[in-house]
Amino acid sequence: MSAYSNMTPAQVRGKIRNQEITGNTSGMCSGYAQANLVILPKNQAYDFLLFAQRNPFSCPLLEVSDTGSRELRYIAKNADIATDLPKYRVYKNGCLAEERLSVEDLWQDDFVSFLIGCSFSFEAELLEAGIPVRHIEEGRNVPMFNTNIPCAPGGIFHGNMVVSMRPMTPAEAIRAAAITAQMPRVHGAPVHFGNPEQIGIRDIASPDYGDSVTVREGEIPVFWPCGVTPQAALMAAKPAFAITHAPGHMFIADIKNTSLKN
Amino acid sequence: MSAYSNMTPAQVRGKIRNQEITGNTSGMCSGYAQANLVILPKNQAYDFLLFAQRNPFSCPLLEVSDTGSRELRYIAKNADIATDLPKYRVYKNGCLAEERLSVEDLWQDDFVSFLIGCSFSFEAELLEAGIPVRHIEEGRNVPMFNTNIPCAPGGIFHGNMVVSMRPMTPAEAIRAAAITAQMPRVHGAPVHFGNPEQIGIRDIASPDYGDSVTVREGEIPVFWPCGVTPQAALMAAKPAFAITHAPGHMFIADIKNTSLKN
Repeated sequence: MSAYSNMTPAQVRGKIRNQEITGNTSGMCSGYAQANLVILPKNQAYDFLLFAQRNPFSCPLLEVSDTGSRELRYIAKNADIATDLPKYRVYKNGCLAEERLSVEDLWQDDFVSFLIGCSFSFEAELLEAGIPVRHIEEGRNVPMFNTNIPCAPGGIFHGNMVVSMRPMTPAEAIRAAAITAQMPRVHGAPVHFGNPEQIGIRDIASPDYGDSVTVREGEIPVFWPCGVTPQAALMAAKPAFAITHAPGHMFIADIKNTSLKN
Repeated sequence: MSAYSNMTPAQVRGKIRNQEITGNTSGMCSGYAQANLVILPKNQAYDFLLFAQRNPFSCPLLEVSDTGSRELRYIAKNADIATDLPKYRVYKNGCLAEERLSVEDLWQDDFVSFLIGCSFSFEAELLEAGIPVRHIEEGRNVPMFNTNIPCAPGGIFHGNMVVSMRPMTPAEAIRAAAITAQMPRVHGAPVHFGNPEQIGIRDIASPDYGDSVTVREGEIPVFWPCGVTPQAALMAAKPAFAITHAPGHMFIADIKNTSLKN
């Protein structure tokens, strides 16, 4: 249990802003939604918004900022997008250029911030329903894989879906599918379960991102659309400049996970 | 029952394209989704896409076209957006300039088409569930009202929500709410029921758009977000040029209403 699990999002964002907290946000502010971040200059923002509209399960938008604004209107009050995530990644021409604790110095008047729903939100619901989540049990990052499932292209953005994987018994998978189907703003129902090769995954023990986890006898891998998909599309499109959160270093919103249920 | 109720969307779109059909599309292609249309030049498209993202229940996007394309990728094959609606409205500076049977002659390379979900889709589900829909029974257009419920602004687009109203018994309203909550891409659950004044409606017998219908003893008015909301936002924003469908003269898609359920 994180020392920050019972603090409010505003309190934790304050500590992140002061750089008292610079690590990953897993387990912080129990019950509150966390979000992936993509920041793009306005001239790429239309294409990204179109990509998100066409791929709502891998790229579910919780909020799109006003152009140039470091504040949000809907999912958090008094937040500063340029300072309130513990770690950022700066991409130039699709390549990781640096990691930073703040992007205040880089801020431009034409930046648009996209806050994207995160599977942390549905994992809380799965645990609540008594469905085990293996990577949490094993203290690891969720395993994520590139697939052969094409995203719908949107302007310059294109690529295949990235999925996260959680091993479960078939009975648990059926319940997990029903629960997550009710949460379309945080990736929704699984896209696949069972044979990984059917979606282009060769080795379930070697994830493309995150850590591998134990798949026990009698369990099947269950695959959900993943918030890394928009980052993969970003790297494929190679815009001149983009900022994202560093993996696991998310934005903590003022809205509850339960508000993301249908 | 429309003479065209058992034809396929492609067949009816062909007859509309030839101007064999120029009337409203109510009852055509039973079971298939119909959509509202907004066409804007690319330089306003970002703001409209942002407005839709922030107001998903009054402005649920079924598809956004590629810039300049008269074809669609997802909800219909071999459709021509410039000819396949029976009647269009052309707006200049927010004012209705003319109605036309085709906008082929007006087409520009920078046009973006927004196809927006329509309550026809959930009415089919209500009827299927044995819930009466008064304006259909009475052979009228659905009554629609301006409200005092603010939309979230998106760039130049802003305004209050427009709602459609269907009178029902409380028991029917409860079932209708449960059914439509499962259809967020066609306006979702009601936003209000009961006292119209609470949402700024003074006279339930005098709709701002459409026709009035009978509210019987023991019935309450039930209000849903309405696809006229984006048109009202368009008239408030007064972009130099925009095209919409004429009321009731919708785009008929190849997708089924049932595909719009969660």
